[in-house]
Amino acid sequence: MKQIRRENHLARTDRAALDSVLDAAAVGTLATVVDGLPWAVPMLYARDGDRILLHGSTGAGALRHVAAGAPAAFCVTLLDGMVVADTLFESTANYRSAVVRGNLTAIDAGDAAYALDLLSDSLIPGRSSEVRSSTKKELAATLAIALPIEPEGWTVKIRDAPPPRPETNADLGSWAGVVPLRTVAGDPVPAPWVGADVDVPESVLRLVKGT
Amino acid sequence: MKQIRRENHLARTDRAALDSVLDAAAVGTLATVVDGLPWAVPMLYARDGDRILLHGSTGAGALRHVAAGAPAAFCVTLLDGMVVADTLFESTANYRSAVVRGNLTAIDAGDAAYALDLLSDSLIPGRSSEVRSSTKKELAATLAIALPIEPEGWTVKIRDAPPPRPETNADLGSWAGVVPLRTVAGDPVPAPWVGADVDVPESVLRLVKGT
Repeated sequence: MKQIRRENHLARTDRAALDSVLDAAAVGTLATVVDGLPWAVPMLYARDGDRILLHGSTGAGALRHVAAGAPAAFCVTLLDGMVVADTLFESTANYRSAVVRGNLTAIDAGDAAYALDLLSDSLIPGRSSEVRSSTKKELAATLAIALPIEPEGWTVKIRDAPPPRPETNADLGSWAGVVPLRTVAGDPVPAPWVGADVDVPESVLRLVKGT
Repeated sequence: MKQIRRENHLARTDRAALDSVLDAAAVGTLATVVDGLPWAVPMLYARDGDRILLHGSTGAGALRHVAAGAPAAFCVTLLDGMVVADTLFESTANYRSAVVRGNLTAIDAGDAAYALDLLSDSLIPGRSSEVRSSTKKELAATLAIALPIEPEGWTVKIRDAPPPRPETNADLGSWAGVVPLRTVAGDPVPAPWVGADVDVPESVLRLVKGT
């Protein structure tokens, strides 16, 4: 199998490509350095223009190491297909990935409500308008951090192609191709206390339809 | 939205849980430290008993920083559902995640064929028996590295539950629940040079059926 970043021609340098990859996923891996060692944690996120909002609670063990100003790399990957070549060596994956590098910044307490709404609406479109506003207590327990997207601070790789053509004609007779992979939503599962007569909200219907 | 690792009771300490998470995904994020800064890259991988095989080519820019012995953290995340609570604050995600920490090790040239077969069969079950053996040239261009799974060197978190029950009865009347997410394979797409009469191999049929 080919290492998925081997092919350098897959790199994309247009900002629109970065935004499309970031906007297509909901979870990424935040990597930072703690006591000289690599540290990684999965995080829900949303892009807010030129920054990535990462969300936690002030009690989150996952974030206790992450101070404002800490250097970080945030990696998002969407696996779009397995690429089945005529050899193991040429087999690989179709994927979209982005790595954004920069220094984490804190989000002001005054922006916490905005950040929470934006993150929620990114993950469940329209959800923030269906529920009550967050309370001061909730916002105080919310720790939002941001990673700025800087002009030279990111890389995007996209592979979306069939396997390489075999070099020898003898191998042209065997099957080769791509098995596409995608994420789909199943039917919404109501919580145990929710009655059968309660309508599923628009935001949830939209989420199910959109995947 | 709750930061997805906030709830510490989600941590699992049984090795079977780690293996099940690692074996359920095909791509993860390798994080390491380069010149004191965090560095992250998505990589295809497979678990081989007590180690994770990560695969590249010797020309891979992605791996030029990764020396044998380098400290690393490898993070795998499966997003299993969006958890829609009655408040934004309590909304979160169902997921499975694993982080394995340790020092990368090189794989001997003599083990490269084994590693390539195992990785291929992990991603496309049974594929290695359908194609010719890898050539010496291919194996020489293959750089397999491994991350050992050590007893204290990993963490697993699994959330698989409805949203928290509302604290006030007034909120019990609104919908809350989970939108399950899963990855599915589409119909295999043959490469442009593959004739319509060429059978799709068993490994590919198995992959499509298994997802």
